[in-house]
Amino acid sequence: MVNTIRMMHQANDIQQIIERALAEDLGSGDVTSEATIAATAVANGRLIAKADGVIAGLTVATQTFAALDAAVQFMPHTVDGRWVEKGALLAEVTGNGRALLSAERTALNLLQRMSGIATQTRRFVEAVAGTKAIILDTRKTAPGLRHLDKWAVRLGGGQNHRIGLYDMVLIKENHIAAAGGIPAAVSRVRAYDTAQRPIEVEVCNLEELAQALSLNLDRILLDNMSLEQMREAVKVADGRVPLEASGNVTLDTVAAIAATGVDYISVGSLTHSVQALDISFLLTGG
Amino acid sequence: MVNTIRMMHQANDIQQIIERALAEDLGSGDVTSEATIAATAVANGRLIAKADGVIAGLTVATQTFAALDAAVQFMPHTVDGRWVEKGALLAEVTGNGRALLSAERTALNLLQRMSGIATQTRRFVEAVAGTKAIILDTRKTAPGLRHLDKWAVRLGGGQNHRIGLYDMVLIKENHIAAAGGIPAAVSRVRAYDTAQRPIEVEVCNLEELAQALSLNLDRILLDNMSLEQMREAVKVADGRVPLEASGNVTLDTVAAIAATGVDYISVGSLTHSVQALDISFLLTGG
Amino acid sequence: MVNTIRMMHQANDIQQIIERALAEDLGSGDVTSEATIAATAVANGRLIAKADGVIAGLTVATQTFAALDAAVQFMPHTVDGRWVEKGALLAEVTGNGRALLSAERTALNLLQRMSGIATQTRRFVEAVAGTKAIILDTRKTAPGLRHLDKWAVRLGGGQNHRIGLYDMVLIKENHIAAAGGIPAAVSRVRAYDTAQRPIEVEVCNLEELAQALSLNLDRILLDNMSLEQMREAVKVADGRVPLEASGNVTLDTVAAIAATGVDYISVGSLTHSVQALDISFLLTGG
Amino acid sequence: MVNTIRMMHQANDIQQIIERALAEDLGSGDVTSEATIAATAVANGRLIAKADGVIAGLTVATQTFAALDAAVQFMPHTVDGRWVEKGALLAEVTGNGRALLSAERTALNLLQRMSGIATQTRRFVEAVAGTKAIILDTRKTAPGLRHLDKWAVRLGGGQNHRIGLYDMVLIKENHIAAAGGIPAAVSRVRAYDTAQRPIEVEVCNLEELAQALSLNLDRILLDNMSLEQMREAVKVADGRVPLEASGNVTLDTVAAIAATGVDYISVGSLTHSVQALDISFLLTGG
Amino acid sequence: MVNTIRMMHQANDIQQIIERALAEDLGSGDVTSEATIAATAVANGRLIAKADGVIAGLTVATQTFAALDAAVQFMPHTVDGRWVEKGALLAEVTGNGRALLSAERTALNLLQRMSGIATQTRRFVEAVAGTKAIILDTRKTAPGLRHLDKWAVRLGGGQNHRIGLYDMVLIKENHIAAAGGIPAAVSRVRAYDTAQRPIEVEVCNLEELAQALSLNLDRILLDNMSLEQMREAVKVADGRVPLEASGNVTLDTVAAIAATGVDYISVGSLTHSVQALDISFLLTGG
Amino acid sequence: MVNTIRMMHQANDIQQIIERALAEDLGSGDVTSEATIAATAVANGRLIAKADGVIAGLTVATQTFAALDAAVQFMPHTVDGRWVEKGALLAEVTGNGRALLSAERTALNLLQRMSGIATQTRRFVEAVAGTKAIILDTRKTAPGLRHLDKWAVRLGGGQNHRIGLYDMVLIKENHIAAAGGIPAAVSRVRAYDTAQRPIEVEVCNLEELAQALSLNLDRILLDNMSLEQMREAVKVADGRVPLEASGNVTLDTVAAIAATGVDYISVGSLTHSVQALDISFLLTGG
Repeated sequence: MVNTIRMMHQANDIQQIIERALAEDLGSGDVTSEATIAATAVANGRLIAKADGVIAGLTVATQTFAALDAAVQFMPHTVDGRWVEKGALLAEVTGNGRALLSAERTALNLLQRMSGIATQTRRFVEAVAGTKAIILDTRKTAPGLRHLDKWAVRLGGGQNHRIGLYDMVLIKENHIAAAGGIPAAVSRVRAYDTAQRPIEVEVCNLEELAQALSLNLDRILLDNMSLEQMREAVKVADGRVPLEASGNVTLDTVAAIAATGVDYISVGSLTHSVQALDISFLLTGG
Repeated sequence: MVNTIRMMHQANDIQQIIERALAEDLGSGDVTSEATIAATAVANGRLIAKADGVIAGLTVATQTFAALDAAVQFMPHTVDGRWVEKGALLAEVTGNGRALLSAERTALNLLQRMSGIATQTRRFVEAVAGTKAIILDTRKTAPGLRHLDKWAVRLGGGQNHRIGLYDMVLIKENHIAAAGGIPAAVSRVRAYDTAQRPIEVEVCNLEELAQALSLNLDRILLDNMSLEQMREAVKVADGRVPLEASGNVTLDTVAAIAATGVDYISVGSLTHSVQALDISFLLTGG
Repeated sequence: MVNTIRMMHQANDIQQIIERALAEDLGSGDVTSEATIAATAVANGRLIAKADGVIAGLTVATQTFAALDAAVQFMPHTVDGRWVEKGALLAEVTGNGRALLSAERTALNLLQRMSGIATQTRRFVEAVAGTKAIILDTRKTAPGLRHLDKWAVRLGGGQNHRIGLYDMVLIKENHIAAAGGIPAAVSRVRAYDTAQRPIEVEVCNLEELAQALSLNLDRILLDNMSLEQMREAVKVADGRVPLEASGNVTLDTVAAIAATGVDYISVGSLTHSVQALDISFLLTGG
Repeated sequence: MVNTIRMMHQANDIQQIIERALAEDLGSGDVTSEATIAATAVANGRLIAKADGVIAGLTVATQTFAALDAAVQFMPHTVDGRWVEKGALLAEVTGNGRALLSAERTALNLLQRMSGIATQTRRFVEAVAGTKAIILDTRKTAPGLRHLDKWAVRLGGGQNHRIGLYDMVLIKENHIAAAGGIPAAVSRVRAYDTAQRPIEVEVCNLEELAQALSLNLDRILLDNMSLEQMREAVKVADGRVPLEASGNVTLDTVAAIAATGVDYISVGSLTHSVQALDISFLLTGG
Repeated sequence: MVNTIRMMHQANDIQQIIERALAEDLGSGDVTSEATIAATAVANGRLIAKADGVIAGLTVATQTFAALDAAVQFMPHTVDGRWVEKGALLAEVTGNGRALLSAERTALNLLQRMSGIATQTRRFVEAVAGTKAIILDTRKTAPGLRHLDKWAVRLGGGQNHRIGLYDMVLIKENHIAAAGGIPAAVSRVRAYDTAQRPIEVEVCNLEELAQALSLNLDRILLDNMSLEQMREAVKVADGRVPLEASGNVTLDTVAAIAATGVDYISVGSLTHSVQALDISFLLTGG
Repeated sequence: MVNTIRMMHQANDIQQIIERALAEDLGSGDVTSEATIAATAVANGRLIAKADGVIAGLTVATQTFAALDAAVQFMPHTVDGRWVEKGALLAEVTGNGRALLSAERTALNLLQRMSGIATQTRRFVEAVAGTKAIILDTRKTAPGLRHLDKWAVRLGGGQNHRIGLYDMVLIKENHIAAAGGIPAAVSRVRAYDTAQRPIEVEVCNLEELAQALSLNLDRILLDNMSLEQMREAVKVADGRVPLEASGNVTLDTVAAIAATGVDYISVGSLTHSVQALDISFLLTGG
């Protein structure tokens, strides 16, 4: 699935995100830096964590600075995915002074968002430690930033649900109604999808679950079920098909959900309600 | 400043955000909807608020559905910028069933983020009601979404700080150091910037404030000052130059800051730590 | 065939046409409106038919105004595809004054062309009323506007011939000569085209028709035949394969052609020789 | 005004029109030609006029064939702008057989439209022969094809009115109303437009004409005036400012309008209601 | 393999190379020509060979001039692929003076590089005359210019090795190591590549050759073998599989290599170490 | 002159060159690596010099690998601009095995060309050591690669002549003829060019030199003069205006030219006739 063209497209996609973010910030130019910083000044900067959390996006930050100064030098002091304490030195950057100042905000916006997602994901992962439950993200990502948001989830210890509408089938209520029931919907998909992508079906109650269990699916989504329903679902499924719990999962509720024995728990807030991790960029020279 | 070309670019920018967001979700196609929904099925959907808040992004949601079905019909039941209660019907949408299902997530991602920003902005604005303080955003926006994020802030009742590095000068510590002091930095900018953009200077203490006050600036940013320092700053400035308070402002602290008499309070969390407003899309038919 | 990706591409294609048309008209900006209209002025406009005809392109006109002012409001008083009398109010538009004035010409150019095509198509459709003949367009569209031109034909009551060289096979004289005869050409196509697109063959006389009739085709094109030849062709075909009449069909000749009993009549002038429908935009305020 | 960058943009614009037109026709490929014509076959084609008229677009047709076969050879037998009789050989083309067949329709669509415009322009020009009136086009061109449409008008013997909203000021009724009268509108433009583009004002009656004449304008547009009004206007203007007649000018009315003594007559139908000139492409080999 | 879409892409690719090259040279405009040459001046230029060699790129040069002046006239006096003597007139060009001067350098850069490649290729081809060896290029082309570089090789009398990583399989040392031996690598490719592209395997010695010969390959690459090894390889292969010699082949060594009886000789220096053929552009008028 | 926008454009330009080069090589994918290398394999590679020379392009090579694997690690063992001996280890690279194999050729094509240019430039610079002559490049670069080619010249110790037609005025024979003499041409440029770019004039003999010397130019180009003429020119100019020697300069002739006392010597062959520096990439694992 990870062929060379897809690798090129993904790397290019990230590059595009960076360049667009820089372009929208720079507009017709960073007039302040152009006026006050000498064109050839060299500056050094240090990325410092201002709060505890999981760092995600250091290579993205590198590319952000490099997108303004192709000769910038970036020395990481940690690696993506690692938990750091407040005050930790994350990386040093050396390059053209104007480039560093002009790129600073964009680099931080990217790094802080990714680190915020990774940190919150880590908290969910830790909350379910000791159970078999795997924390998943959703498609509720910031428009245009899906690949970064989902990369950050992986760095936080979660796994990715489907990337978009194209890499997996998720049959929901409307699809079921249109097709005339769960079995009909699954049949239609199997007849239509020559690529035979994995199929997941959303069920709202145990009757639907029973129907779904007989269809040899790749996963079943339990939509907004109570803990009791989920426990029953786990019992009924009995390991034949992996189950995913979904619906307004929070840090307060996730442990109890995991304890029901479900295999996956998907959490929309990981990416739709991100709290940026505080990181600062201290510059000397420039 | 709002010439016709800039109008075209801004409208186009928003269109691009929508198309990119759809493209990253659709990838090679919504295989589930294609398999289960008839190609010519017509569906009706209703956007419903699932929480109280300020609605922002209805026209963006319209364009999102129209980007998949050029003939979609959209009937709004409220307008952007209005506070709605949980349960309120926001709009009805009629169009091709596949188009509505395929565009749903992207439309909601946009609408929920903008509404989340507008709602939080409204809370800050209300917290400073009765003072003259104006709530500003910052450049700490989601990469690629600056125009939407800042539009949402306006719909929430805030005002926009500079859009990017290009439409206003903000002289910070590093610029001052490079130029050799505040007066020198301001002089350099005035000599360099033939467009004579507004100039704001960041000051950390009252000595710097005193220096800045003599330079006929458009605004002065008080960086991370204590309430006492801000009160003193307001006294010293005495209305000669508008003052902006900045630095980790929260809903808990903003009222006290406003009470110091500052003119502007900029709040990074409005856009860097957004909590999506819960909105759902109920579909019938399709 | 109408999958979600194709829907996105088509909607996007129309959006591109609009943006390109605006860009070529605006160039570096509408200097007249910028100089004379206040930046924040709001204006109201009314689209009025100045001649009888079929309206086509109202949603395209909406998007044209929205491409300059994302917040424009558009209230249609009729719908695409309907016949209106001279003087009819088609729609009201409210929005930024400069945006409305700057977009006016482009919106009208699109709306007038599409309405002109739809109107003329309607005339052909009415001329063959009472026969089974269906009016088709051709690939003789304005370069870059094929999707709009063909949409207008549908709104006028015609059907679309193939969209381009890719969605149907039409074997003409040169293909036949190169392949060494009609049967050989059809065989080659069937061997080559794994997607098994519909196949139509162009014939010039009754001998070729006889050959073609034995090949189980989807349609046969009678190229520039006399009425008598067509009548004979209809008799020979005897309903086994649908027949299409083609070649300089005019409003004067179309009824007689339809009376021969052919199934389809394709009319190049519908799109290659368009007479714009006169529509005006009356603006108040701005 | 014709600097090197603008030359590059215009040539590139025409190249883009050709490539877009080919792409919309080819889609996923010309399956008929691919199946029936050998990949290495060489073909010869002849462009033949099927009606009398002015040829326009031969170089555009060349580039169209070259856009599919970089090694195509094109031998013109006439030049753009010349009147030809029905049956005339316009050019010979030699190249890859598939390329010639696949590009044929697009090349003809471009050539027939441009020749249609040029031919109709020539008729208007001839209708006013012996007067000083110059035939102008308008901005009522096919969306996306302005540069081609206006090039064809020049080849037909007409002159171009402004290319778009950017290269000349045309103050119309709404601008006048917004600015508070003709003199105010003209003043605003002169203050705003540092490039000092030519200024034309639209007047509806002789009172407005009198106002306009005192303002040292570059041209005055007489909007929908009667012949009598125009004669009077010419008398009043007395050569101080060139006058342009405008408003539903037809081949039947243009001579009388020219006889009033106006300097320019602009004709929207030249480009908004084009009748394609019939031209065929006869292919041998391929 | 040469379908219509690929023809369009290749022709478009060449057009893009030309436009990018012009754009990087023109930047914000050819200020020298704009200042000194009248905007409407017409000039004539002659392309003259200043050294003996094979001409390649005349049609590319044509398109380069046409990319600045759509109406340029180009009269070739020779054709691509022909050997010319120093002093030969290659073509005459007539067009806008500024366009000719501004495009001159770019046209020559393209023409001289392609002619340089073609000329050197011809020398290699002549050096192996009388043997069955065919001269091939490699993927060592100038980044972004592969299609031009490989076109020039063909014009010089060579043949193209694979165009890129996509149109043929070439199994090298690292692939073999990863797959666990030559037979395993070939099996994997045959299982993976549903398009069944031609397969070539790189071998370093006669043992590997023996393994490869049993696998029914399309070609075998002899990597850096001695003349003796190659002679032995030819004897062993005995015409069952075509052999390609590779590795630092020069004009001094190529004849001896060809004499070993190998079928192909690939030469990296043809495109990675190009010596431009000296060609000048003499302008009169302008 | 080096403002932030130009920095962004230049860095972006280089990124584009890399992505285009990869795309033209990968096409629809590296089928060989996809078939034989495991998707998750990690590989290590070493860049090794196979000949003595100046290394240029290491950061470009880094970005090439990163464009296929965003997480690649690159450890340089030398820096751009340094002379290395055959056999020297230039850098180590660790990353996804397929990415490294697929990017290898493109990275080498870029690195070898840039190093080839830098190496040859170094030879010219050393040949004129002890004189004041500075080695310049020309606009005779590979189409699309100007920024890389000129960067490599700087890394080799040369200086850049103008980047394109836009950043400096160079008045040549045709400009002089069109303007009616050297003084007229210079006057026209000074009147036209509000940015007051540096002006250089090309002279062919001492009479023209005398004319040029009186015009207060920034540089004078001695076109194809003999050594004697150059010596005389240096004497006449007497340091008032810097002189540039130009015209088929080779390593054999450059020292004598420098000895005449000219200030600059421009060498077209540096970039139009590049000999790639041999560098190899040895991969382990993958």
